[in-house]
Amino acid sequence: MKASEVARVVAGRIEGGADPDLTGVAPLDRATPSDLSFLSNTRYADEAAASAAGVLFVTEAMSRELPASITRIVVGDVYAALAGVLPLLYPPVPREPGIHPTAILEAGVVLGDSVRIGAYAVIRAGTRIGDRADVGVHCVVGRDCVVGEDAYLHPQVTLYDDTRLGARSILHSGVRIGVDGFGYHAAGGRPQKIPQVGNCIIGNDVEIGANTTIDRGSIGPTEIGDFCKIDNLVQIGHNVRIGAGTVIISQVGIAGSTRIGRGVTLAGQAGVNGHITIGDGARIAGQAGVFGDVPPGATYSGYPARPHREALRVQAAINRLPALLRQLRGGSGADTPSSET
Amino acid sequence: MKASEVARVVAGRIEGGADPDLTGVAPLDRATPSDLSFLSNTRYADEAAASAAGVLFVTEAMSRELPASITRIVVGDVYAALAGVLPLLYPPVPREPGIHPTAILEAGVVLGDSVRIGAYAVIRAGTRIGDRADVGVHCVVGRDCVVGEDAYLHPQVTLYDDTRLGARSILHSGVRIGVDGFGYHAAGGRPQKIPQVGNCIIGNDVEIGANTTIDRGSIGPTEIGDFCKIDNLVQIGHNVRIGAGTVIISQVGIAGSTRIGRGVTLAGQAGVNGHITIGDGARIAGQAGVFGDVPPGATYSGYPARPHREALRVQAAINRLPALLRQLRGGSGADTPSSET
Amino acid sequence: MKASEVARVVAGRIEGGADPDLTGVAPLDRATPSDLSFLSNTRYADEAAASAAGVLFVTEAMSRELPASITRIVVGDVYAALAGVLPLLYPPVPREPGIHPTAILEAGVVLGDSVRIGAYAVIRAGTRIGDRADVGVHCVVGRDCVVGEDAYLHPQVTLYDDTRLGARSILHSGVRIGVDGFGYHAAGGRPQKIPQVGNCIIGNDVEIGANTTIDRGSIGPTEIGDFCKIDNLVQIGHNVRIGAGTVIISQVGIAGSTRIGRGVTLAGQAGVNGHITIGDGARIAGQAGVFGDVPPGATYSGYPARPHREALRVQAAINRLPALLRQLRGGSGADTPSSET
Repeated sequence: MKASEVARVVAGRIEGGADPDLTGVAPLDRATPSDLSFLSNTRYADEAAASAAGVLFVTEAMSRELPASITRIVVGDVYAALAGVLPLLYPPVPREPGIHPTAILEAGVVLGDSVRIGAYAVIRAGTRIGDRADVGVHCVVGRDCVVGEDAYLHPQVTLYDDTRLGARSILHSGVRIGVDGFGYHAAGGRPQKIPQVGNCIIGNDVEIGANTTIDRGSIGPTEIGDFCKIDNLVQIGHNVRIGAGTVIISQVGIAGSTRIGRGVTLAGQAGVNGHITIGDGARIAGQAGVFGDVPPGATYSGYPARPHREALRVQAAINRLPALLRQLRGGSGADTPSSET
Repeated sequence: MKASEVARVVAGRIEGGADPDLTGVAPLDRATPSDLSFLSNTRYADEAAASAAGVLFVTEAMSRELPASITRIVVGDVYAALAGVLPLLYPPVPREPGIHPTAILEAGVVLGDSVRIGAYAVIRAGTRIGDRADVGVHCVVGRDCVVGEDAYLHPQVTLYDDTRLGARSILHSGVRIGVDGFGYHAAGGRPQKIPQVGNCIIGNDVEIGANTTIDRGSIGPTEIGDFCKIDNLVQIGHNVRIGAGTVIISQVGIAGSTRIGRGVTLAGQAGVNGHITIGDGARIAGQAGVFGDVPPGATYSGYPARPHREALRVQAAINRLPALLRQLRGGSGADTPSSET
Repeated sequence: MKASEVARVVAGRIEGGADPDLTGVAPLDRATPSDLSFLSNTRYADEAAASAAGVLFVTEAMSRELPASITRIVVGDVYAALAGVLPLLYPPVPREPGIHPTAILEAGVVLGDSVRIGAYAVIRAGTRIGDRADVGVHCVVGRDCVVGEDAYLHPQVTLYDDTRLGARSILHSGVRIGVDGFGYHAAGGRPQKIPQVGNCIIGNDVEIGANTTIDRGSIGPTEIGDFCKIDNLVQIGHNVRIGAGTVIISQVGIAGSTRIGRGVTLAGQAGVNGHITIGDGARIAGQAGVFGDVPPGATYSGYPARPHREALRVQAAINRLPALLRQLRGGSGADTPSSET
């Protein structure tokens, strides 16, 4: 594929004179003259200048950081351009509709048109699979589930009974949806299980990362809105409700009955307490420990999480603390480290 | 089921005049007149007053917060009442004993009465499965394991060789028990594996959440006591010993050889160092980093974890720090945030 | 096996007079006179003195802490000695080469000599499995993968398409390699998926713990160097590159495009930001939050992570803060805990 053709596909402007033939996409330091690469951040400008890539996607602003000799395609959004051109250079493996002879479909399973059911998958009684959905090898879809059209389940996903999964959703390997939540009452000094009779409702266009777990509602549903993107190894507790377009990075944990708005970002390893509300568009920093409500649009960080500016102010004050103590004690060497770790 | 009949089952007192027919249980904001709901916390009293639920479970104290017109069943423990009535309104799916024809049982497997072995499950040589145990679809039970009576393994659980699982235990999908622990010694500057020859012993009435991992002992067993309740995505290292009735919330990690007492609570994402002891009845807050021993009955929080009152005192002092610095410097604006994040 | 024979095998010096017959290895508090045990840390010296073990592995230094009456084998490295003797006392289960009749091998799969493919495993088109490799029950090996010789995949591992796995690597149950990374661009206010066309390259002699997830590169590979040891429930993002011999403890998360050197140690639950560099031989403490580059050989801890000595100094200052505030305010009781948690 000619670089000029790539430029046309992504509505970009090619500059730099050359028009190489491109066979793939590669990172700056691995690209060869037949590779497309890209510059996403000015911190990599030197690496870009030294790259052997045949052509680079850059924004207008980044283009100015590069020597004129470098062939580039100037675009409005580098990642959108990549998303546009990658399927042309790396055509996805064609779908293979069909029911593998080893798949087990219990009574009352209803299959849409052109579905694929992989080897050794098990679909339990009363479940409906939408048109063109793809249920991977070794998946287990419980009783009375609904799998939306064009949904894609990678191998070894488990949907517990009564799960509803929206159209075009993608579940990676090892995802478990509809798990019994953590609900016990104390009786005789011992925790006793409370039956978990709710379910999970996953919206359309949701992607869920590998080995992520989502609990069913204790009563009523746990709900994940349309266009949510959830990374690997995330935990979502029972009765949680998450609005559309929210993004949850790896290893986040959300305790039960919390409500999270639309367009929220939760960065990696953040923990969110139960029974609280995080407003639309809020941003929670990595490893934050969120114990109370977060207003819409706010950015919170730290433990306990607070507005990020305030957290930075406290952090800056902490950093000055050893010097302050030294000063108050007249530089007496009192800041010898203690050994609490 | 009449509300008055529900009240009888849970030994509660019905008040408010009506006696609706109930077909389900729902959260306050979704309940209809044919639903039972409940009030677990006075913070939801307004929601309860506005709910369309046919009847509410409440405690004596919460009952006083509600308008007299609301039909309620007054009980001693809302969750115990729910646990009592849920199986009546949501009868569990009947058990289906039997060995699926695709299940593979190696030589010397001993099956109790009325067991169920799901499709494509593999039970390796020398393993015993107790009466009425249920081994789900795609489970792998290693060599020489013991699965207790009435144990329930959801799909895709892996028990490594020599695991012992107690009676009535519930393992959710993706649980891995008896994994090789993280044991290496340095040789020639490279980590070399130390064979892990211990095993895992899980007590009776234990529940373990989805995708949780428990390492086998390096030598001797890793032990989880009776009535422990372990949430999703928890990691328990080799040689750990946990006393009866301990509760471990999601994403907690416990490093090797640590001993945890009876009736301990470890909240979400807490991390516990190796080779330490946490006493009976201790409570560890979410995200705490526990580096040393914790005495029985203590509540610890923070990083490094310390007694919770002390942690609160330090936290309060930290919160006053920016103002203190401003004051010491005469309000010179010296608290401009630095940029370390 | 006689204790004197064990001493010979590990090139140790037996002392204490007795020469018991040994049938197993056990921890100090469970060992019987026919067990070998060991002392790894002087904190356990009392337990060692009280142990019923037939013989103990000890170092020269630890030997001096023990009563002369205790039979011991003095070695240079206790763990290396254990690694040497364990396979003799606990012979590993013999390998069982062969292709289980239920395994599915698609077109173009190439198998080396003496491989084992477990029951219900699925190997997709174009994949090569090296000599003596062992692909466990229910494993799914995607298209065009390479599995190195003597690699060992425990049950229910998923390798996505194009994964390359080195020789002698061990993957525990539930490992997912080559998962689509978390790559989206915003379009119309909604996150849109960017195809992830890179792959994963795992070196030789790597061990990866249960339910760990490793993303494929977005473009180009995600790379794990030779002799890396990765624990359970770890997350490694797309395009990450990790040098040889690096050790990653449970529940660590590494965000995309970060480069980690050789011989690095990342302790449990640490989080590492994307697009940064951690130098060779660095050590990152448990639960640390690493937001910026870490120089080679440095030890970092805390949130945000900083040099450990500096973190200890700040921590010590924080610990003195309540008293300082009391002093500044004349002991006015101003340190009443606030209620932010």
